[in-house]
Amino acid sequence: MPEFSEDELVSALRTILAEDSAGVRLGLGDDAALVELGQYPVVLTADLLAEGVHFRRETTSPHDLGYKSLAVNVSDVAAMGGSPRFALVSLGIPQDVEMAWVVELYAGLRDAASEYAMAIVGGDTSRAGSIVISVAIAGEVVHGLAVTRAGAKPGDRVVVTGTLGAAAGGLRLEAAPKHDVAAVASSWGRELLAAHARPVARVGEGQTLAREGATAMIDVSDGLAIDLARLCRESRVGASVVLEEVPVAPALLEMRSALGIDPLELALGGGEDYELLATLPPAAVQLTADLLRDRFGTRLTDIGEIRSGEGLVAVEADGSERPLEAKGWDHFART
Amino acid sequence: MPEFSEDELVSALRTILAEDSAGVRLGLGDDAALVELGQYPVVLTADLLAEGVHFRRETTSPHDLGYKSLAVNVSDVAAMGGSPRFALVSLGIPQDVEMAWVVELYAGLRDAASEYAMAIVGGDTSRAGSIVISVAIAGEVVHGLAVTRAGAKPGDRVVVTGTLGAAAGGLRLEAAPKHDVAAVASSWGRELLAAHARPVARVGEGQTLAREGATAMIDVSDGLAIDLARLCRESRVGASVVLEEVPVAPALLEMRSALGIDPLELALGGGEDYELLATLPPAAVQLTADLLRDRFGTRLTDIGEIRSGEGLVAVEADGSERPLEAKGWDHFART
Repeated sequence: MPEFSEDELVSALRTILAEDSAGVRLGLGDDAALVELGQYPVVLTADLLAEGVHFRRETTSPHDLGYKSLAVNVSDVAAMGGSPRFALVSLGIPQDVEMAWVVELYAGLRDAASEYAMAIVGGDTSRAGSIVISVAIAGEVVHGLAVTRAGAKPGDRVVVTGTLGAAAGGLRLEAAPKHDVAAVASSWGRELLAAHARPVARVGEGQTLAREGATAMIDVSDGLAIDLARLCRESRVGASVVLEEVPVAPALLEMRSALGIDPLELALGGGEDYELLATLPPAAVQLTADLLRDRFGTRLTDIGEIRSGEGLVAVEADGSERPLEAKGWDHFART
Repeated sequence: MPEFSEDELVSALRTILAEDSAGVRLGLGDDAALVELGQYPVVLTADLLAEGVHFRRETTSPHDLGYKSLAVNVSDVAAMGGSPRFALVSLGIPQDVEMAWVVELYAGLRDAASEYAMAIVGGDTSRAGSIVISVAIAGEVVHGLAVTRAGAKPGDRVVVTGTLGAAAGGLRLEAAPKHDVAAVASSWGRELLAAHARPVARVGEGQTLAREGATAMIDVSDGLAIDLARLCRESRVGASVVLEEVPVAPALLEMRSALGIDPLELALGGGEDYELLATLPPAAVQLTADLLRDRFGTRLTDIGEIRSGEGLVAVEADGSERPLEAKGWDHFART
């Protein structure tokens, strides 16, 4: 079996596609592309969700799936500090999928579009061997306020919105061979399942972080450690993460026994949280945290710092340090 | 098996997604979407190509497939009278696909991007059950020169660029159970295969048609008859097609015996030609044809007229008329 990682592939594609094209402010390899089409920089981004890889038909409602398909793209725009405006949705549908299923999927897409004040303006539908949902988004970003992955500097603080690990917990709960009815029915269980089924994109938070001086930003789609490693690689820096500070989702702590997992491990490597991971000058952290709390009720946690050099370091409770492996969700390695 | 046509689905989705969103000049249901993002109207369009539906791995080189994936999207922008600028490419890849195959695919995409002076600015890659290539394009169109499907008026002439049926002939040749070696090796055979593998999008032609007053335009992706029927439905008119005037690809006439088909039938219903089908006021036809010939070496043929009422009519050599069935490629009906 040929094996290659998503990052290897992206890196190869980046080389193939490297070009100085007029109007491209930022192309392949970041959360979204920035292009000049008119007066404002336009944000373009796309994501593909495939059956059996990102979701299973038996455990996912088409409405939730539609909602999530759009939200994960919006999250990429948020991670640039941009505003999503327009979406294109392309759909591959096997013959055994009912039209009602497709309509429900679009209803979920529409709900998410409404939630984020966007319009779905086109796309394509086709037969395919398995379900594929491909969404592309065009958005805007204010001049000078686009935040890439590449600007983190030694001394910057590493901050993250919300809490981590709940989506991965929901996935585990959903996929458990012996479905734990009591766990699923509990408020914590429902919270985990919802976190996985209906992620929230942090659009307002991303814009606030951009305005308050975020030097780099990425959304946590594949796991804190792997996404922080990506940000650091683009910025050519390293980072430390104080494990005690990582904001583990409270529901995950409650569900520890039912899930039989280490909550911190899920928070570090679980993925699909769609929280924003950013770097800020130390002086900007407190004000930004206050603004996010007051404007959006969203928590911002200082979890570590950017260092010169490379690689990630985990800081234990006793102050000792160990390398932090950039483990997380890689669609190519895991499937 | 649930059966529904692509048009039924699009119609349903249109209802679901109908919204008066600020900035949307044209949303779902035309060749491309028109949105205001800054100073200029932006053209957004997307297409999805699925293995087993649009191509088979055994008979398609990844380089050609990449080239075609972009070209068919560019054709949608051309059919609006626009200029393609930026592309997002999302790819679903099964585990048995080699990295080299993917790289070749992107090389084809890059070649097409270069051909059309575009930049591929992002996208996504993921595992999937079968190969899926999803391309989204953002382009521009000059104020007032966007041509939709909805403006055809009774009395307008129906015109088409280039010749028709070659791509469908190539597909037949490729798929013939007993591959006719002599046919494939002939210059006509090679021409048909190339027409299917490497379609040409008529970008300059589309802009010229727009400037010379085209009242409606669509690209011939699913077949002349079905695409003309779509244009007529959006314009709330009917049309006649003089069968003798339909520009059948010369290679198709040469290959008639090898293919065992009626060339006119393929020209009317074959699809994947990516020629432009437009409507023009009668007074504009000659000048536009001269301009297309002089600027691009492209033939423009007057094949019929727009009539009030609805439905398509075929005009036979003796002047008699019969209903023209809107048959063509429908991904949902045929697969």
